[in-house]
Amino acid sequence: MAQAWHLMSRPQGTPTAENFALKEASLPPLEEGMVHVRNRWLSVDPYMRGRMNDVKSYVPPFQLDQPMEGGAVAEVVESRDPSFAAGDLVMHMAGWRDEAVLPAKALNKLPPIPGIPPEAFLGNLGLTGGTAYFGLLAVAEAKEGDTVFVSAAAGAVGSAVVQIAKAKGMTVIGSAGGPDKCDYVRSLGADSAIDYRAGPLVKSLGEAAPHGIDVYFDNVGGDHLDSAFAHARNHARFAICGMIGGYNAGGEPAAFRYVMRIIAARIRVQGFIWTDYMDRIGEFYRDMGQWIAAGQVKSRDTVVQGLDRTPEAFLGLFSGANTGKMLIKL
Amino acid sequence: MAQAWHLMSRPQGTPTAENFALKEASLPPLEEGMVHVRNRWLSVDPYMRGRMNDVKSYVPPFQLDQPMEGGAVAEVVESRDPSFAAGDLVMHMAGWRDEAVLPAKALNKLPPIPGIPPEAFLGNLGLTGGTAYFGLLAVAEAKEGDTVFVSAAAGAVGSAVVQIAKAKGMTVIGSAGGPDKCDYVRSLGADSAIDYRAGPLVKSLGEAAPHGIDVYFDNVGGDHLDSAFAHARNHARFAICGMIGGYNAGGEPAAFRYVMRIIAARIRVQGFIWTDYMDRIGEFYRDMGQWIAAGQVKSRDTVVQGLDRTPEAFLGLFSGANTGKMLIKL
Repeated sequence: MAQAWHLMSRPQGTPTAENFALKEASLPPLEEGMVHVRNRWLSVDPYMRGRMNDVKSYVPPFQLDQPMEGGAVAEVVESRDPSFAAGDLVMHMAGWRDEAVLPAKALNKLPPIPGIPPEAFLGNLGLTGGTAYFGLLAVAEAKEGDTVFVSAAAGAVGSAVVQIAKAKGMTVIGSAGGPDKCDYVRSLGADSAIDYRAGPLVKSLGEAAPHGIDVYFDNVGGDHLDSAFAHARNHARFAICGMIGGYNAGGEPAAFRYVMRIIAARIRVQGFIWTDYMDRIGEFYRDMGQWIAAGQVKSRDTVVQGLDRTPEAFLGLFSGANTGKMLIKL
Repeated sequence: MAQAWHLMSRPQGTPTAENFALKEASLPPLEEGMVHVRNRWLSVDPYMRGRMNDVKSYVPPFQLDQPMEGGAVAEVVESRDPSFAAGDLVMHMAGWRDEAVLPAKALNKLPPIPGIPPEAFLGNLGLTGGTAYFGLLAVAEAKEGDTVFVSAAAGAVGSAVVQIAKAKGMTVIGSAGGPDKCDYVRSLGADSAIDYRAGPLVKSLGEAAPHGIDVYFDNVGGDHLDSAFAHARNHARFAICGMIGGYNAGGEPAAFRYVMRIIAARIRVQGFIWTDYMDRIGEFYRDMGQWIAAGQVKSRDTVVQGLDRTPEAFLGLFSGANTGKMLIKL
């Protein structure tokens, strides 16, 4: 019997294990045009916290007591569509479960990039890397010589931003929580790493970027965003990717002391979703494939074993349990 | 003897009359390349509050016990530069005083637009109108059919935004404080006016714009900006022109409950200064001149008489004493 995680209640603030339940799922019959897949890798990502609220967003909220969704890499078991055959490796959004029967149009074959492990398509060649790549280069229009500040730089998206920025000849300052994660950020090539737990961020960033920042890649919002306002150079560009610090705050307003600098420094602040850039996916696969092959962009995944530990892996995103991309291997 | 207002102390929070002093000024000798002007009209504008703080900004801070600066329209008394002759009407930045001797390059002749009173070059054909025009059309890229929300819509910049947006076929919602100002905003052509003192703004804006807003022209920051985040449609553009609510706050952080919507709705927030668009000044004079001539853009100036009342006029900007542009006539 197939199994799928259901959202049983909407979290108030930080989610807990009690919000989730693993339930048996009966697969529908394999009709014409449908494909039966077995998931090999599941992705858990901070944006999923937003889908747990019952509010309109760029993706609809999870329905209560229904199978949850998320990025997954799967192997085709049986296909009744001519585009897919048993054994094919595919990507789809029916994660948080072990098996699924899906319409062929919900599946994408993994692009044939030599030497890339399949789970990379959930990481540096998927949502993670795509968010970093398009956020940095398309949204923030970061270019050679720019000084780039990136928050949560030891996280999945942040560590990709650090490495792409270095591959493109930028100066990079990354923030992370604690000395070990800061060491990791430096090992990725960052010119400096700020431990945001060690002192006032607005002061640390001023020391790390005495001439200010041209670009801020925001994964956390809050105090990090405010410090970036404080140290933005004229015509700085901010790409707003996530506000993990805000997902769980449960209505606490974010306070900004330096937001008025947006006028004097003509700062541009732009929110984005990487799927808006799908028309440039070829360019992304080409560049990122080359950087991965050349060792310029590496990933250090945090891998949790087994479908039953999926919520635990998800909850770990909010307690800093992961360095790099958080994955579940089935 | 010429006279000039000096900033005697830096305001903490809202400025008071005690921060200013009117002092006698001895004019320098009229050397080659210099022009002696007598001011006819002075402008006071909210951005000047920022220059009273001792912080780096897009214009340097006012120096203590030195003549202050600001937009002015003047008549040339005597010229030792071939570009100017006695009787010419000019614009310059040596406001807050009655007379000045200035280098010719600090002066601009008023453009020859028929039927325009000279003080309009401090208003709808100057900083005020230019800020509205470039902020709305260039920064926010507002276009026909868009729903535009503008704060401080009864103020100088706001009332120009309302009228330009209507001239361009947009739906306009303006906010202002009190029923009289709201009547004025409607009289300018706004489709609806919100009295921000009458109830929670986030609720009123939702009622005025049930399908959301495409553009927000921000003159005040704070709660207005947050409500705009709440009701922004996908790919909304915010032009951040001023945060009059924040200029005097003296370190109180601005609180935002809806800032996270910047991601889901892919909002673009852009600070600007109208002088960044000087290469397009011809286009501005052409359009604005036509709209003024056609009666599509009107101004209702608040005129204060006499150099000695300049600080009073300035302070009135923060207590809502003005409808439209605040001017001092000498």
